[in-house]
Amino acid sequence: MTLQDKTIAQSRGLDPIFAPQSIAVIGASSDPTKTGGRPIHMLKMHGYKGRIYPVNPKSEVVQDLPAFASLDALPEVPDLIMVLVPGAAAVAVLERAVELGVGAAIVLSAGFAENGPEGQALQARVTELAATSGMRIVGPNCLGAVSVRDAVIATFSVALEKDMPKPGGISIVSQSGNVGSAALANLHEAGAGLARFIATGNEADVQAADALEWVAQDDETNVILCVLETCRDGARLTRALDKARASGKPVVVMKIGTSEAGQKAALSHTGGLAGSDRVFDAVFDRHGAIRVHSLEEMVNTGIALDAMGDRRIGTDPSVAIVAASGGFGVMMADAAAANGVAVNPLSEATQARIKAVLPLASAVNPIDATAQMSANPDFLEELVDSALSDPANSTACLMLSMGMGIPRLRKVYTDALARVTAKHPEKTVVACIAQPQDAVEELRGLGIACFPTIDACMAGIAALSARDRIQTRGAVEVEQIAVEALSPEAWRNEASAKVALRAAGLPFPEEIIARSPDEAAKAAEKIGGPVAMKILSPDIQHKSDIGGVQLGISGAENVAAAYKRIMLAVELHASDARVDGVLVAPMATGGTELILGATRDATFGSVVMIGLGGIFAEIFEDTALALAPVSKTQAETMVRSLKAFPLLDGARGRAPADLDALTDAIVNLSRFVARFADDVAEIDINPLLVRDKGQGAMALDALIIPNDHHQAEAAE
Amino acid sequence: MTLQDKTIAQSRGLDPIFAPQSIAVIGASSDPTKTGGRPIHMLKMHGYKGRIYPVNPKSEVVQDLPAFASLDALPEVPDLIMVLVPGAAAVAVLERAVELGVGAAIVLSAGFAENGPEGQALQARVTELAATSGMRIVGPNCLGAVSVRDAVIATFSVALEKDMPKPGGISIVSQSGNVGSAALANLHEAGAGLARFIATGNEADVQAADALEWVAQDDETNVILCVLETCRDGARLTRALDKARASGKPVVVMKIGTSEAGQKAALSHTGGLAGSDRVFDAVFDRHGAIRVHSLEEMVNTGIALDAMGDRRIGTDPSVAIVAASGGFGVMMADAAAANGVAVNPLSEATQARIKAVLPLASAVNPIDATAQMSANPDFLEELVDSALSDPANSTACLMLSMGMGIPRLRKVYTDALARVTAKHPEKTVVACIAQPQDAVEELRGLGIACFPTIDACMAGIAALSARDRIQTRGAVEVEQIAVEALSPEAWRNEASAKVALRAAGLPFPEEIIARSPDEAAKAAEKIGGPVAMKILSPDIQHKSDIGGVQLGISGAENVAAAYKRIMLAVELHASDARVDGVLVAPMATGGTELILGATRDATFGSVVMIGLGGIFAEIFEDTALALAPVSKTQAETMVRSLKAFPLLDGARGRAPADLDALTDAIVNLSRFVARFADDVAEIDINPLLVRDKGQGAMALDALIIPNDHHQAEAAE
Repeated sequence: MTLQDKTIAQSRGLDPIFAPQSIAVIGASSDPTKTGGRPIHMLKMHGYKGRIYPVNPKSEVVQDLPAFASLDALPEVPDLIMVLVPGAAAVAVLERAVELGVGAAIVLSAGFAENGPEGQALQARVTELAATSGMRIVGPNCLGAVSVRDAVIATFSVALEKDMPKPGGISIVSQSGNVGSAALANLHEAGAGLARFIATGNEADVQAADALEWVAQDDETNVILCVLETCRDGARLTRALDKARASGKPVVVMKIGTSEAGQKAALSHTGGLAGSDRVFDAVFDRHGAIRVHSLEEMVNTGIALDAMGDRRIGTDPSVAIVAASGGFGVMMADAAAANGVAVNPLSEATQARIKAVLPLASAVNPIDATAQMSANPDFLEELVDSALSDPANSTACLMLSMGMGIPRLRKVYTDALARVTAKHPEKTVVACIAQPQDAVEELRGLGIACFPTIDACMAGIAALSARDRIQTRGAVEVEQIAVEALSPEAWRNEASAKVALRAAGLPFPEEIIARSPDEAAKAAEKIGGPVAMKILSPDIQHKSDIGGVQLGISGAENVAAAYKRIMLAVELHASDARVDGVLVAPMATGGTELILGATRDATFGSVVMIGLGGIFAEIFEDTALALAPVSKTQAETMVRSLKAFPLLDGARGRAPADLDALTDAIVNLSRFVARFADDVAEIDINPLLVRDKGQGAMALDALIIPNDHHQAEAAE
Repeated sequence: MTLQDKTIAQSRGLDPIFAPQSIAVIGASSDPTKTGGRPIHMLKMHGYKGRIYPVNPKSEVVQDLPAFASLDALPEVPDLIMVLVPGAAAVAVLERAVELGVGAAIVLSAGFAENGPEGQALQARVTELAATSGMRIVGPNCLGAVSVRDAVIATFSVALEKDMPKPGGISIVSQSGNVGSAALANLHEAGAGLARFIATGNEADVQAADALEWVAQDDETNVILCVLETCRDGARLTRALDKARASGKPVVVMKIGTSEAGQKAALSHTGGLAGSDRVFDAVFDRHGAIRVHSLEEMVNTGIALDAMGDRRIGTDPSVAIVAASGGFGVMMADAAAANGVAVNPLSEATQARIKAVLPLASAVNPIDATAQMSANPDFLEELVDSALSDPANSTACLMLSMGMGIPRLRKVYTDALARVTAKHPEKTVVACIAQPQDAVEELRGLGIACFPTIDACMAGIAALSARDRIQTRGAVEVEQIAVEALSPEAWRNEASAKVALRAAGLPFPEEIIARSPDEAAKAAEKIGGPVAMKILSPDIQHKSDIGGVQLGISGAENVAAAYKRIMLAVELHASDARVDGVLVAPMATGGTELILGATRDATFGSVVMIGLGGIFAEIFEDTALALAPVSKTQAETMVRSLKAFPLLDGARGRAPADLDALTDAIVNLSRFVARFADDVAEIDINPLLVRDKGQGAMALDALIIPNDHHQAEAAE
């Protein structure tokens, strides 16, 4: 079969990248230490079973393999090409590869978007080639891909030059080549097994999200580690995360650039509070990824998840601590508290059981086995069994950093732990142990999650528990909102915005639009009691500043006078503004002031936010946000996550607030923005007064900023 | 010279513990793996040059050494005895040792305070023996002491069974034996050198503070690591810390039990907010110790300090980051931000200098050297020299975790760093590198602070900088307060408390005590404007609750009526209360509400606290505290450390507050409580209204709770 016999391939996805039967190396070198020589050297060294085709017009033999002058000269169309020639030459190769029907390409060479306008143009051509041909292209300027079991080494990373990680269930998907490599190296040093590795670099075509989706459906992969610097397509990423969740493969993600993201605060108030890094938090939370904040945490958590198999921590992590030292017990309790892990006292029966073995032990929790344990190592089994049998805590956490280095103790401990983990097949034992390495691996073989330090243990337990907590949070069905067909006019001013939001279930009081002093007086009479009066105009956003607001006005005469004052102020300070009248509303008092808002994230869509009102939201950064729409339960989780939650929950003798009304408001706003995601850029409901339990909530002011295309229409 | 010839020794301090010429082991065992045999085994193995005397009535030879039946049978009075016999037998040995004039004792055996009432009585006897004789006793129930250079191994810790850390400049003082041992093991694994080790256990006599004071004056010690579970004597600890600071030896302290301490919240409001763990923070801050929160952080920081010698980070840490990968650069900037370390842009001249070498490098900061650096490793020198020569940042931080494993790169890097560190002898280079171990040690030899992870690097830089920040904070001279001799009566009610505090410089408005409706009316007239009226009684603390407060009263008639209402309310609800009259004061409005308070910590004395007023102090835990007295600068540091500080600093268009008046109030209250530390249990000034800049501050309410002995007097 000649090259010409083959037809142009349709997209075969990423299969040729991770499981190619044949690999051509474009720009192959005879020097195994050079970037062009390293891939061939490593493919041979680690025993790749497929066919390797060095392509180099200047050599006939490369590293003992016959070399070819070009892609066209190959005896077959390869599944995968690795492109090591730079810039324009690489693009030429890709163009020919598409014509020949090559399965996929990895462009390791640089000289693209990172290299000025010329490189950007070359990269645009790469994107176009992939899009029009269906041939998937990884890179350019990337570190390539690895499949350990089949020794597919489509990278020049020095991390694999000496030896390979053993085959295993963990896959790494990274945008950054170096950070991904470091994760691979750490995994290897920890003696853990790797399934797949990919570093997507400039992402002209294949994004981390695509790779994530592929490994989410990969039989060899149990756990996915993911390093993100950015997200180029929110929908692709969330779909990939959903697939991973559906297939039961936990994703541990480290999104870097948190501080940069902080600097790129959005312009508007709510947007500024939301901040794009917090949107990533909301995305990972919603779509079931476990977010970590360091390389070590990512690798430790991934290895622990792989070791644990079907064992679980549960949604509310709590630990029974077993230490042979009071000091370590205290440190473990401190670290647990710092990581939100409860340390619940053991039952009296459990304490009695422990005291029967170790009369001098402190048995409440932490269990301080004292020096007695190293003298009687066989007591460990009874202690751990006691801890796991007691329902007070979800997990047992053992300090093993000292004992396992002593062969006599190690054997006793390991045997004991083998029995006790077998007896509790669904419960998780977490061990604090850094070494010896083979002892750590032995413990992991028992399904024990191992972390090298006390802090790592407790942070790990929190991360492992996040898996259970976010596992169940799916998308919420967006109910149809019973609002008349919305046009930009529907929220052209405060009154129409409130009408729309009230129809969506937000608690706005009934208000009357007055178009004359007389109408205002009549409206005030109908409402009863003192009223608030505000200018209605799509063109005036800061109404108070120009004298467009009058508060607490009583009596027909005063109301009529206030109307005139407002109109005079508008004439003076905003003479060009379109005026729709004056809004007359009941004065609202009492309750706790919150702000409720929504923004549209450019990458991930609508986001809803709740926070403490006034200046505090900004200073204490006390806001919670989530991707819209949210369920009632998710809204409650948001509210409970506020530092100010005690204010709403009856702190210091206050009456508890009407959480039901508050969460209803969040749910209803979230549905509204999800339904009208294309039309709404931002909504601010400020303040939202939440009253005492049973008294409801009341939204006082609303601003809907339409999306650009609506604003453009309105301006026409 | 016989035993009897010697006289009872006076206190020779801890010298015999760390530098004994002779050691007797009471309860010596022939089995080198047993606790009684291990010390002798290790002394011999590691080459102790002094005289070793096994004491065991049942053996004539122990581990090839002649054994003795008792202390009395020894050929000399030993400098040090190690006591391994338990409980009552140990006490008997100590009693005889005192009579014989033994230099010091280490009681390794248990069976004391940790072991019920009987053990407590034995321990009290140990304390008494040490106090009356001057013979210092370490323990009981402790892990003993080690001096590495002289191979003094007065411990049975298995940590030293295999090998010893090399001699070096770091000393470890720990209350917990196991945690101290773990620190020693970590230090050893990191290839760092140890001077002294001591674990003080039950502290019947020698406290960690005493050991700290000793090593603070020890020529072999450069850096002190300290593990505290508690502090039994605040004055001893602060004196020891002051001595360490005076001798230029940094103390890195890990105080454990933070979460327990949190549970032991003091009863009163201010005390509850202060919490004893926060008092430790204030103590370490004032007395120049660097607080860390994990074993790894303590060891890493200690090793870095020892390596740095005279190099400094400076008080405001900032880093020029050098990484050969954009991803790592971003992660390092993230970690810097998370640890309060600035990443300032380099000057244009520096950027041009970097671009001249690496045209594709990102040179702003982080400096992303890209893959070009591994191809041209000699560029590192120019990059690091550029970073250190630019005054924009105090420190250079390098990612070396990948490069130093490759011999070719390692040699080039190390040579370059040797030259550049020599060129900048006062500046600190921090490297992120975990291994290879010998490369890390080589870098440390150049004065480079090495940390194994990115997070550890940036947390380390913050900790190292804390050294410079707290180095200069000494005690403040307490000025004599010009207040008339104070008796308990001086603060028996709000009015007299205010008089005392006003005399001390606190900004209380002039107020008038009225004892009849008529006097009240006259007082209001004199003050002018609406007034606040409050019942004055030493027996009524929650005045509003019983109707003892009337606010905003104007006009003579109304004021007189309000006086009567108050008296009627007191008659109804607090008929037994002693009544001193009604306080008439101007109504105060405006300004930001703060709370200013002071408490007396049982261990460390007077503490002053400032926080945002109202419910927020508690919910956001936004308070700052310091040991009293504080200087004006320290008061400003406290205020600036509040999360709410932007509220006082003109956030969101507000007028800046009168910080000068606020810090004056803090300073004056701190001097007052320092001056009357014995008399005052607690002071609450709530609210303290801080007005716009230039407008001053006004304290509205004051409560002084006298110390118990005064209350007892008052009750007589």
